[in-house]
Amino acid sequence: MTITARNLFTGASAPAGVEQCLTLFESANVRVERIVSNTHSSPADFWYDQPEDEWVMVLRGQATLEFAGGGSVAMRAGDHVTIASHVRHRVMETGADTIWLAVHVKPQP
Amino acid sequence: MTITARNLFTGASAPAGVEQCLTLFESANVRVERIVSNTHSSPADFWYDQPEDEWVMVLRGQATLEFAGGGSVAMRAGDHVTIASHVRHRVMETGADTIWLAVHVKPQP
Repeated sequence: MTITARNLFTGASAPAGVEQCLTLFESANVRVERIVSNTHSSPADFWYDQPEDEWVMVLRGQATLEFAGGGSVAMRAGDHVTIASHVRHRVMETGADTIWLAVHVKPQP
Repeated sequence: MTITARNLFTGASAPAGVEQCLTLFESANVRVERIVSNTHSSPADFWYDQPEDEWVMVLRGQATLEFAGGGSVAMRAGDHVTIASHVRHRVMETGADTIWLAVHVKPQP
């Protein structure tokens, strides 16, 4: 049996202002995603409101998350947070070709 | 509500020959783990044989995984593989203070 590694940094570039998502692993319960954000922010007054928990880290670059209840968190490479279900949040800003790694717990039937 | 980021590289050092695990996120379905391996290898003739899939990447350093059916995969920073359930594998070698990020799908009742 041959297992080949893929590299997460390959092709990790997006046009300015754009966010690109790539699924790296998926099972019935979880989805692991690479997100490349190049000087991207969520639309004004847009809030993510997810039914399940998400764990996310910055792999390269920097970013700031904003929370609907007030407050924000500035993140650099290696920083990680857990965003509990229904904690409304948005991407306030990201640096050039910032890479996120997101682990999404999938809703269960 | 205040969310604080933790940094994955903080304290990411282990004694020579040792592997240290830290759970970063856990839910009913998934566990995300940081593994620091400092010139570590699995015991000879030891094979991991896991009931569920695992997705793993090298965040820093380098490592080689070996598979029971023959073959190995050399991994550097950014490289990731999916190890399907019951694919027997072991850590052949790692570099100094190599950091893995592992996403373990948990067995379901």
